[in-house]
Amino acid sequence: MPARGWCDAMRLLIINPNTTASMTETVAIAARGVARQPDHVVAINPDTGPAAIQGAEDGARALPGLFAVFEREVLSGDHFDGVIIACFDDTGLWELRARSSVPVVGIGEAGYHAAALLGPRFSVVTTLAVSIPVLEENIRRYGFADRCARVRASGVPVLDIEGDEQRSRALIEAEVARAFGEDDVASVVLGCAGMANLADELTRRFNRPVIDGVSAAVGLCETLHRATSPLRS
Amino acid sequence: MPARGWCDAMRLLIINPNTTASMTETVAIAARGVARQPDHVVAINPDTGPAAIQGAEDGARALPGLFAVFEREVLSGDHFDGVIIACFDDTGLWELRARSSVPVVGIGEAGYHAAALLGPRFSVVTTLAVSIPVLEENIRRYGFADRCARVRASGVPVLDIEGDEQRSRALIEAEVARAFGEDDVASVVLGCAGMANLADELTRRFNRPVIDGVSAAVGLCETLHRATSPLRS
Amino acid sequence: MPARGWCDAMRLLIINPNTTASMTETVAIAARGVARQPDHVVAINPDTGPAAIQGAEDGARALPGLFAVFEREVLSGDHFDGVIIACFDDTGLWELRARSSVPVVGIGEAGYHAAALLGPRFSVVTTLAVSIPVLEENIRRYGFADRCARVRASGVPVLDIEGDEQRSRALIEAEVARAFGEDDVASVVLGCAGMANLADELTRRFNRPVIDGVSAAVGLCETLHRATSPLRS
Amino acid sequence: MPARGWCDAMRLLIINPNTTASMTETVAIAARGVARQPDHVVAINPDTGPAAIQGAEDGARALPGLFAVFEREVLSGDHFDGVIIACFDDTGLWELRARSSVPVVGIGEAGYHAAALLGPRFSVVTTLAVSIPVLEENIRRYGFADRCARVRASGVPVLDIEGDEQRSRALIEAEVARAFGEDDVASVVLGCAGMANLADELTRRFNRPVIDGVSAAVGLCETLHRATSPLRS
Amino acid sequence: MPARGWCDAMRLLIINPNTTASMTETVAIAARGVARQPDHVVAINPDTGPAAIQGAEDGARALPGLFAVFEREVLSGDHFDGVIIACFDDTGLWELRARSSVPVVGIGEAGYHAAALLGPRFSVVTTLAVSIPVLEENIRRYGFADRCARVRASGVPVLDIEGDEQRSRALIEAEVARAFGEDDVASVVLGCAGMANLADELTRRFNRPVIDGVSAAVGLCETLHRATSPLRS
Amino acid sequence: MPARGWCDAMRLLIINPNTTASMTETVAIAARGVARQPDHVVAINPDTGPAAIQGAEDGARALPGLFAVFEREVLSGDHFDGVIIACFDDTGLWELRARSSVPVVGIGEAGYHAAALLGPRFSVVTTLAVSIPVLEENIRRYGFADRCARVRASGVPVLDIEGDEQRSRALIEAEVARAFGEDDVASVVLGCAGMANLADELTRRFNRPVIDGVSAAVGLCETLHRATSPLRS
Repeated sequence: MPARGWCDAMRLLIINPNTTASMTETVAIAARGVARQPDHVVAINPDTGPAAIQGAEDGARALPGLFAVFEREVLSGDHFDGVIIACFDDTGLWELRARSSVPVVGIGEAGYHAAALLGPRFSVVTTLAVSIPVLEENIRRYGFADRCARVRASGVPVLDIEGDEQRSRALIEAEVARAFGEDDVASVVLGCAGMANLADELTRRFNRPVIDGVSAAVGLCETLHRATSPLRS
Repeated sequence: MPARGWCDAMRLLIINPNTTASMTETVAIAARGVARQPDHVVAINPDTGPAAIQGAEDGARALPGLFAVFEREVLSGDHFDGVIIACFDDTGLWELRARSSVPVVGIGEAGYHAAALLGPRFSVVTTLAVSIPVLEENIRRYGFADRCARVRASGVPVLDIEGDEQRSRALIEAEVARAFGEDDVASVVLGCAGMANLADELTRRFNRPVIDGVSAAVGLCETLHRATSPLRS
Repeated sequence: MPARGWCDAMRLLIINPNTTASMTETVAIAARGVARQPDHVVAINPDTGPAAIQGAEDGARALPGLFAVFEREVLSGDHFDGVIIACFDDTGLWELRARSSVPVVGIGEAGYHAAALLGPRFSVVTTLAVSIPVLEENIRRYGFADRCARVRASGVPVLDIEGDEQRSRALIEAEVARAFGEDDVASVVLGCAGMANLADELTRRFNRPVIDGVSAAVGLCETLHRATSPLRS
Repeated sequence: MPARGWCDAMRLLIINPNTTASMTETVAIAARGVARQPDHVVAINPDTGPAAIQGAEDGARALPGLFAVFEREVLSGDHFDGVIIACFDDTGLWELRARSSVPVVGIGEAGYHAAALLGPRFSVVTTLAVSIPVLEENIRRYGFADRCARVRASGVPVLDIEGDEQRSRALIEAEVARAFGEDDVASVVLGCAGMANLADELTRRFNRPVIDGVSAAVGLCETLHRATSPLRS
Repeated sequence: MPARGWCDAMRLLIINPNTTASMTETVAIAARGVARQPDHVVAINPDTGPAAIQGAEDGARALPGLFAVFEREVLSGDHFDGVIIACFDDTGLWELRARSSVPVVGIGEAGYHAAALLGPRFSVVTTLAVSIPVLEENIRRYGFADRCARVRASGVPVLDIEGDEQRSRALIEAEVARAFGEDDVASVVLGCAGMANLADELTRRFNRPVIDGVSAAVGLCETLHRATSPLRS
Repeated sequence: MPARGWCDAMRLLIINPNTTASMTETVAIAARGVARQPDHVVAINPDTGPAAIQGAEDGARALPGLFAVFEREVLSGDHFDGVIIACFDDTGLWELRARSSVPVVGIGEAGYHAAALLGPRFSVVTTLAVSIPVLEENIRRYGFADRCARVRASGVPVLDIEGDEQRSRALIEAEVARAFGEDDVASVVLGCAGMANLADELTRRFNRPVIDGVSAAVGLCETLHRATSPLRS
């Protein structure tokens, strides 16, 4: 009988860089649903900063709060084995990674990596048009510019995803439909942490992969945790 | 008490595109060591084709055998939920993926994805110089050209990794040392399936991540399996 | 009186990777019309595989048959001095070239090279939208991404070019008109082997170069044959 | 019996943009050796301008003379069906092409196109280091940056190729040897019009393609002439 | 009391490469309005060549006249400390720079540099569609391809900017409005020397930066003059 | 008599993101030496954070202090018309720019822009090797990857530039010499704010432009201030 696979417990910190606690909870549920050790998943958000991150200015304003959480939870105390930044803009990703001794993964980057592995090209469906330049710049930096057919805005503000749920779902679904119909893509990445709970349903609806960055990030973070496990032994 | 994380059983097929069964076994052991369901991992290799893949010509010669295995095991029968191509050249990756309804991951691409998530830049240590142009071309196609500092040859032929074990390890370790010393990289990817069992030891030795593409591929394949699970429900 | 130019006889093998013999014949006629030694041109196709190559999956399915023809005709016997792959997707190009001691040219790549030499930018008019990602990926790999304004689908399935000739010509001509009208291009490349016999007429119609990859490939193959002639002396 | 191949007579003008007539003659001989109609090949050079083009400044100084020749021979009178610019820097290429109704090909670009068709990567061996940035910029513009492993200087000034023939050949051959030894390339392009008569010998010596841009340009020009022949009927 | 800032007098030559003197005057006024030493600004144009530069062919035809002015005014006599090429196509930029010992700046490149410093992305509003490929190629060469969202044509011929002033302004303003409305850009660059006097008004109208390449070029030229001032001491 | 050139007073804030006041003073002197209104130049640094920024981790640690200064001085009160970030890593550049209504320029980016305008290629001479990946990533994001021949480390730690002045100058000068000798570049950019006072002397020594990012940034900031002046009227 073969040995059981690797099962080193991983304490996972998810930081939602905006201050909307209900979104933090949505993300936590999505993450626990796929994690190897769901009860080792902790999700928090800063007390100060923007309630939603829409565009580069919001992202810049969210950094002080995000940095404070990171310093308190990760740098002081070493309580966690991996960090997920739960904003699709990957707010502060390069800075946290530079300061961290454990893996740090953004949910945007996680979504792109998963999509790039699923087929030649993918599209993104995000919230408002103001986020498009931010995401396109990230996609270029990560190297996926040729893999991404198009970043599309659904026109749904971040906080409407929960606040005006029915209308938001309809708009997001319509934009996903356009992406599959017009962009010749193998998958669509949902471009907001708050859309985490829509992915499975949309995947079934379109019978093609609609990717949630949160669960992708959990899988990637566990993969990196395993790859770096000898550093802890 | 939180729900247990996702645990949909995944039947994973690993195809070593060369004909050397001992290398297939090395890969299988590495994969089972990290898989969620180790006893659902099957590793095989074609009966015909090159004994090792060194350079583009070998890669081209390996394709007929690889395609035959894929057609028999994956297309006829639908026995597997994911496929890993266990040659660092990612032999036939785009072709198998185009024909497959389940995720297909190459161990080269898996290593690059993991390394790209661990830090700004990585280097690769492979076998012979003849493989460098093949790997550089892959790295470009995947989008990691700016993330990869350098592809380095250790001078060890594929079959010597097992056949002349002691000398091979010394040469590989020396080249990894040069990569960390000269290339300003956060991690090094081992550029051959046959090196799978060296990664953990080298990670400890250099106290920095030395990545094995086989275990990275298992983690990524499981992540994609989860992301596409609604397609099966 | 100056010496006559170089006239080393070149035995040219054209492989149509799909199984449609009438398309093989169309290609052969186009190639013989421009070759220096028309009676040294041989065109064949595999017995098994897809009847037309539309999209990446068809391309992958065509490889076994293509490889078998290449092994029989080129590797065993050394009967030919150059090989043209007569599918605009350049099916198997990198693999055949890696295994070949004589020049191998794809008709897609030949069309792009010719167009890149004729002016700053070109567009492509191909058959169905499913082929666009394949062609765009090729164009990127060859380095022509900045030279290609747009890859356009005419909506004509490969086999309709001959099967529904009149309607097909109208659709193709309309798309070429849009390319010249909207894309600021110096030339248009016809993106299917089966369109070989339309190029001259469309060139006259639009009074601008409409390029057929088959005849371009013959010229390029002869050029490479000349450049490598000292290897045979 | 199949019809004879295409044989529309092509009057070919080769302009050497420097003022060294002996180099013009070397080029003419190389071109006539491969042209379909050797006695339709005319080679000339301007009366004023630099005796050799080494670096961007020389190139800029050569333009007025080159433009004057082009205006007199091509724009006024329509005597020629194609133009070859016989300087490896492709001096004035984009400008002449913009003003010309017949194909214009540079010998630098011709060499790169041929090399890109022969294998995954090539290197260039040119004269002095001052030319490297010019050639690298051209290679980028044409799209071959990823195909070119390295542009190498032999240290031989342009006029020494003929003036100090024996030493020059030794230095060029030594650099070609280094290119094949260190760069993992399928071919080497000779980076100066004055090296046209060395290519065949070096090809034999290294048993791998050493490409002369002049003969490549003749083949490409004839290919383009054929592709655009309906414009003249 | 702090020392007064740097005030080395700079004699600035502006060359309008077309022959339309009224456009030269427009440019001179714009430049003098921002220069540190307005009375050291001289603006001239060639006597021969196209009256307006629209597309690559016009650009090529303008070079002989431009080169003649440059040789007379800059190379013979050393009367000037900096040169501005006042055509948005940056006609002859690389050639003049290669031959010049003082800074040479094109107004197109100046506009792009300023826009790249003002925000993540910019768009360009130029005259006719025939200029788009020329500008896109320049933008690529300078490295701003990822910063430029779109090059847009207003449909206004160069000479209409002054000749049919009211209609031209309306069309240009409408296209600037579309750029701000659709392209997610921080600024818009006006793509013609003749539009120099429209920038300030449009900036006020849209309350966002609308950039004139002429004044940008003056500022950049002065900056370069300062940086190279030790070469003159 | 022509009108005096533009002379709208510009209040310029220079933020040195590290906490070393003597370096802030060096930067202030360099900036005042070139500014149009030297007595409107203010230079400050945070109270907390790293004393020098060497590598990505230091950069990330400097952000909270930098953001606090920016919020206090620029966002609250609107006291300044432009901001210069006086660290060659361009610490926090994109974030400050996203939040600012006045131009923000980094001294690294300013140095590259100036160098890109002076000739085809430049090199950079910075402090320690740990900064190379940070600078290379910036250079790629700005679009200058093809213009930058090489980023070189002098081996001089930031604080040694002032602390061990004689030895530091010798090492920096030696590396600049290697850049001019080996890299085929038109200019060299000094890669540290603390080197601002070395540029003029090195320019004289090598008789080729050695660029200081601080004075370049002042010139660029003034140029942008002028271009956006209608926003303030």
